Amino acid sequence: MKRYIILLLLSVALSIANAQKPRARDLGVPFNGKTGTFNAITDVKGVEVGYSTIISGSGRNIVGKGPVRTGVTAIFPRGKARKFSPVFANWYSLNGNGEMTGTTWLTESGFLETPIMITNTNSVGVVRDAVLKWYVDTDWYKGEDWWYTYPVVAETYDGFLNDIYGFHVKEEHVLEAIGKASSGKIAEGNVGGGTGMMCLGFKGGTGTSSRVVTIKDSSYTVGVLVQANFGRRPSLTIAGVPVGKELLDTLNNELKLPPQSYRKEGDGSIIVVVATDAPLLPHQLKRIANRVPLGIGNTGGYGTNGSGDIFIAFSTANPDAFQRSDFARVDMLPNDEIDPLLEATVQSVEEAIINSMIAAETMEGINGNKSHALPHALLIEILTKYNRIKK
Amino acid sequence: MKRYIILLLLSVALSIANAQKPRARDLGVPFNGKTGTFNAITDVKGVEVGYSTIISGSGRNIVGKGPVRTGVTAIFPRGKARKFSPVFANWYSLNGNGEMTGTTWLTESGFLETPIMITNTNSVGVVRDAVLKWYVDTDWYKGEDWWYTYPVVAETYDGFLNDIYGFHVKEEHVLEAIGKASSGKIAEGNVGGGTGMMCLGFKGGTGTSSRVVTIKDSSYTVGVLVQANFGRRPSLTIAGVPVGKELLDTLNNELKLPPQSYRKEGDGSIIVVVATDAPLLPHQLKRIANRVPLGIGNTGGYGTNGSGDIFIAFSTANPDAFQRSDFARVDMLPNDEIDPLLEATVQSVEEAIINSMIAAETMEGINGNKSHALPHALLIEILTKYNRIKK
Amino acid sequence: MKRYIILLLLSVALSIANAQKPRARDLGVPFNGKTGTFNAITDVKGVEVGYSTIISGSGRNIVGKGPVRTGVTAIFPRGKARKFSPVFANWYSLNGNGEMTGTTWLTESGFLETPIMITNTNSVGVVRDAVLKWYVDTDWYKGEDWWYTYPVVAETYDGFLNDIYGFHVKEEHVLEAIGKASSGKIAEGNVGGGTGMMCLGFKGGTGTSSRVVTIKDSSYTVGVLVQANFGRRPSLTIAGVPVGKELLDTLNNELKLPPQSYRKEGDGSIIVVVATDAPLLPHQLKRIANRVPLGIGNTGGYGTNGSGDIFIAFSTANPDAFQRSDFARVDMLPNDEIDPLLEATVQSVEEAIINSMIAAETMEGINGNKSHALPHALLIEILTKYNRIKK
Amino acid sequence: MKRYIILLLLSVALSIANAQKPRARDLGVPFNGKTGTFNAITDVKGVEVGYSTIISGSGRNIVGKGPVRTGVTAIFPRGKARKFSPVFANWYSLNGNGEMTGTTWLTESGFLETPIMITNTNSVGVVRDAVLKWYVDTDWYKGEDWWYTYPVVAETYDGFLNDIYGFHVKEEHVLEAIGKASSGKIAEGNVGGGTGMMCLGFKGGTGTSSRVVTIKDSSYTVGVLVQANFGRRPSLTIAGVPVGKELLDTLNNELKLPPQSYRKEGDGSIIVVVATDAPLLPHQLKRIANRVPLGIGNTGGYGTNGSGDIFIAFSTANPDAFQRSDFARVDMLPNDEIDPLLEATVQSVEEAIINSMIAAETMEGINGNKSHALPHALLIEILTKYNRIKK
Repeated sequence: MKRYIILLLLSVALSIANAQKPRARDLGVPFNGKTGTFNAITDVKGVEVGYSTIISGSGRNIVGKGPVRTGVTAIFPRGKARKFSPVFANWYSLNGNGEMTGTTWLTESGFLETPIMITNTNSVGVVRDAVLKWYVDTDWYKGEDWWYTYPVVAETYDGFLNDIYGFHVKEEHVLEAIGKASSGKIAEGNVGGGTGMMCLGFKGGTGTSSRVVTIKDSSYTVGVLVQANFGRRPSLTIAGVPVGKELLDTLNNELKLPPQSYRKEGDGSIIVVVATDAPLLPHQLKRIANRVPLGIGNTGGYGTNGSGDIFIAFSTANPDAFQRSDFARVDMLPNDEIDPLLEATVQSVEEAIINSMIAAETMEGINGNKSHALPHALLIEILTKYNRIKK
Repeated sequence: MKRYIILLLLSVALSIANAQKPRARDLGVPFNGKTGTFNAITDVKGVEVGYSTIISGSGRNIVGKGPVRTGVTAIFPRGKARKFSPVFANWYSLNGNGEMTGTTWLTESGFLETPIMITNTNSVGVVRDAVLKWYVDTDWYKGEDWWYTYPVVAETYDGFLNDIYGFHVKEEHVLEAIGKASSGKIAEGNVGGGTGMMCLGFKGGTGTSSRVVTIKDSSYTVGVLVQANFGRRPSLTIAGVPVGKELLDTLNNELKLPPQSYRKEGDGSIIVVVATDAPLLPHQLKRIANRVPLGIGNTGGYGTNGSGDIFIAFSTANPDAFQRSDFARVDMLPNDEIDPLLEATVQSVEEAIINSMIAAETMEGINGNKSHALPHALLIEILTKYNRIKK
Repeated sequence: MKRYIILLLLSVALSIANAQKPRARDLGVPFNGKTGTFNAITDVKGVEVGYSTIISGSGRNIVGKGPVRTGVTAIFPRGKARKFSPVFANWYSLNGNGEMTGTTWLTESGFLETPIMITNTNSVGVVRDAVLKWYVDTDWYKGEDWWYTYPVVAETYDGFLNDIYGFHVKEEHVLEAIGKASSGKIAEGNVGGGTGMMCLGFKGGTGTSSRVVTIKDSSYTVGVLVQANFGRRPSLTIAGVPVGKELLDTLNNELKLPPQSYRKEGDGSIIVVVATDAPLLPHQLKRIANRVPLGIGNTGGYGTNGSGDIFIAFSTANPDAFQRSDFARVDMLPNDEIDPLLEATVQSVEEAIINSMIAAETMEGINGNKSHALPHALLIEILTKYNRIKK
Repeated sequence: MKRYIILLLLSVALSIANAQKPRARDLGVPFNGKTGTFNAITDVKGVEVGYSTIISGSGRNIVGKGPVRTGVTAIFPRGKARKFSPVFANWYSLNGNGEMTGTTWLTESGFLETPIMITNTNSVGVVRDAVLKWYVDTDWYKGEDWWYTYPVVAETYDGFLNDIYGFHVKEEHVLEAIGKASSGKIAEGNVGGGTGMMCLGFKGGTGTSSRVVTIKDSSYTVGVLVQANFGRRPSLTIAGVPVGKELLDTLNNELKLPPQSYRKEGDGSIIVVVATDAPLLPHQLKRIANRVPLGIGNTGGYGTNGSGDIFIAFSTANPDAFQRSDFARVDMLPNDEIDPLLEATVQSVEEAIINSMIAAETMEGINGNKSHALPHALLIEILTKYNRIKK
């Protein structure tokens, strides 16, 4: 009768024991498709990710003092060292209750010219201007040339845990995220812009995943990073299993796991960044971006009114596509060969979301508000019940 | 060892025995949400649906003679009798490898002025002009007035079973579909424009479903009709269970169920019509339309390159919204209350697709090409294995 | 006092005398930019244009018998002989009270796969299907392969002069327009789909123009063809001169030139086709297409509610861009070099519209309805008054 | 022979003498349509406009010290006092080389929830966050409720005259623009966000205009405000007269009027705000927004690659359209009656641009860069030559 409590304790023990935090696959959650080396957006060569995680204080919130649970994420398509090398890109909004600056020029030009930054809802402005300052302060602008760009900055809302009206993100945090950007393995969960996020009734945050596909004897990678802050517990779905419904039926009765809060659930958002090294033109990247909802749908999201579900896709192929005056010659994948990339996008988005939840740890924020981590052992139990994990 | 063959025979027996064809729910497939009376698009008051099903010949195809496996579907938002009463509408294309005429004016004006017609890829033109002729021949045009409209006609491809290059749809079939349009219970499977369709590796066709939701003490209905012709068998997912993968692992080995054909699977399409009586403005109906992909995703589709996945949503509320010169007063649901309609759309699309497959019967078409029905008993067995149907 | 009548007679005489019909530049109307050889869309190498002009009967209209004043226009981007060679394309709608089929796939794929056909509003269907039949009947479909496409067919309304509810366009007319498609000098005015059109208070129809620009030492051509059927006489503007207002102030008083009809003016449309040999990607061709309104605006149009103002732009560069499975290498003009093409588009659209009016001759259609040609001598007089033509 | 110099001096004298700066109509420039009381966006009841104009220093530029020539403009649709009363709105981008934040939610929801702010390119972030802070600091957020919004902030580039890389716009300037927002007569030229702008080869800035139209016995107002910073001198067109070309032919030879600078002309932008009190739904406001290019075209602009030409339109009708949970009843103008509003938009945009140039005074900025005002007397002379102003 107390089975679930034991499982919950097991989950905690399992987390503590696991010096290297397990990811969804480590727990046995089944996903389709073949991942890249790190199962991360950084499997797309050149991509670098950096975080600034801002955590301080506890207890009653005082606007401007905190507690603070927020951060900044920076994603460089070709790495920091090639910050002036635009990539083909496009974007799509499933539900535009959010912000992603810079999209108007991205649509018009077909190019993403800046890193992609993700932060909280109220800090988009400071991050945007700080990126411009960083460009100006480094080596581009020499006081003699015309230059301008439109930084891409997206956001999700962390006001349940964070003193969001205190405007705690500063220029220094932007520079920290930029400075720390690197390739290889990257952190998940309560890091960067994802620090104070909640997802599908549990603690959410930053997640990542990747897929490797073969097209015409060549290998291509699709990598995804999400800042996951959307959805409601009852609709949480993992590997096709109605985990949220199962939790409602059994968990709440037995365990009295407290709800997230009085917050109207679902009023979050999800920012998704899709990277690929396949040679796609801007109109083909639009096709990638509008497959993202299918991956979200597989986890139980459906783009609620309060959600800012905005997605950007870029291709690191065609390094010389951006020219000021010379003609460019660019490679283009035939439309007829695009299906593996579309499917890889859906799969990577789904896994990145689940990864964000598996990595995220229980967090207490302002006014004692608490968001609980998804209990791993409990999840395993439920997936086993539905025959999705072999005992 | 021969379990699956027995199950297959059971499926056939079950189908024959069932004078009234079972629908997915009758088989025990679990879906979320509460359906309307008929679990059909016609649960939205006023909506009428009519079919012309064109089946003739068998054996080797002779272009222009057949065999013929095609048809026409007509959907009247407010019924035939109110054919001059435009409804607010909008549309979305997940993957535009298809055609839906009339969308440019629909986007601009916010109104759908004609019935929605669905047929095969090569018959869009004849159906479009026939709708215009029908309007002209009935009571609108009196030889003295200016009048024009842009019929909405969509299509999916049935060339695997049908002599599609024979152009067998004629004006008479359009008039038949219009003439037979009615409310109440409607047929599914191999009927109307859905006659020759295939879906997720099995016979597809026409399917429908509905949901009833409560918003602010009022009850609203969302009804969906699909012409389902998309996807590949390996990705077939029902109630979250990887049915297609399961079938690949076991069915083909045991049963040698023949593949659909040499056809590159996935090169189909899906047309989705969403009706609601909730008072949504055109920009809100766009939100409904772009939730449709989430329902498709739940069945294993992801909008392959060869697929024309085009969706239209309309609201039968606000019967006086369309005015030539007087101001209209229209009701508008607040955005903050739209979530139940979004969720109902996703649920209805998923169930309508599965319904189309459950209802569709094995069909042999041109050159002996055959598309197999999804074996019901086998489906039940698989869902049971994954604990989604209680034994 | 009778000056304008004399000028009108002069116009008529001038027209008759002029075996080769004058074009706007021949009359001295000033335009900016340098034209190509023919000042026509066919200056873009490869482009072929063909017409079927259908004129029969006079007097009282009998639906189905006429009088008939309509037609079909066919435009092949790379010529008839290369009918299977898709071009990069995109489109824009200033006011979507019209139809252009095939745009959904064009948006998705980035390619235009068929000729562009233009006809009257009620004949879009027959033209669409006839194009498919023509493809099937010629050498593509061999009864063994899967093939489908979505013909691009646009329309404007000619019901003031033509028995439009009689559906007089037949497959044979489509084949005639296709068959006659050729490069070089092309006809303007009352020809092809433009036969029964009216524009800015006078007889309109088909018009064309082109510009040659130099970018990075290379020469590129922009060619435009319009089917002009929009606007109201009071706003007619030529070379910046308020010709329509001038005519209202003086002409009606002196000449009693009859108005077009009881028709609510402005309820027409304009279809614009822009061709270029500059290497533009699909998202760049969108930029071309949405400059078309600026050219229309220079003639006095502003996209009235009743107008179907839909524009398509394609590039004949990159002949190998469309591949089924091999990678394509394509040239791309840098965004920073696109301005001359944008300006050329605006200039060509403006001149093509005026050319359509200069070429169109007075036509009497159904029920004695008459649309008057713009009087050339009168135009010259007005432009001279405003110092835009040197005496 | 020295005629133009005399005219130029006359212009200067005329400006000085005129305590109340003349506007384009005062000079005799002919425009179509009937203006509102102030010929300003504030003729739409409720609209309030405020400026912060930041001018300091002269001479050689030191980044961070100046000279400074920039500012902030604030536009409240229903006035400051009704800052929580969203209006129906929509937007369009002719050429997206610019930024307008907040548009994703605007598209999705159909509502504009905040004032519209306009500043320079590099100050979008600080203005965005400052608007949020202002909301938080005034009476909305009470520390207990969830609240967020996405401020609409647009920009144009003033780096020719302003130390744009010095980031001189601060929160205090945003509060100043908000604080000064008022109805009635508003300033034009070198004020607010328009302080450092250049347009069509001369000094540009802020401009405004309005039209009053009658629809079905009711009177409606369309008001426009522009921040004009686009275009090249050769294409400057006023009242249809090729003023720029005329200036090139004569002015430069006689007067040696210095060019603006080495700057590649046309790399500016134009932000256009259209207000109306007509009851338009969001999809109808899109129709208003995409008519803006026609007004720009009439002045010689064509949306060059370097230009951020982004337009927003809102309706102050339907004050109760925005509801959190109750149904809204909203008025809707029939599409068939929208033409006068479309035409009024085109006319107001054209006049607002010319007004911005007429009001703007010659300005010297960083490094001695100078942008010259359009000489009034010279303009009158040219318009007279082309018979557009009666002597």
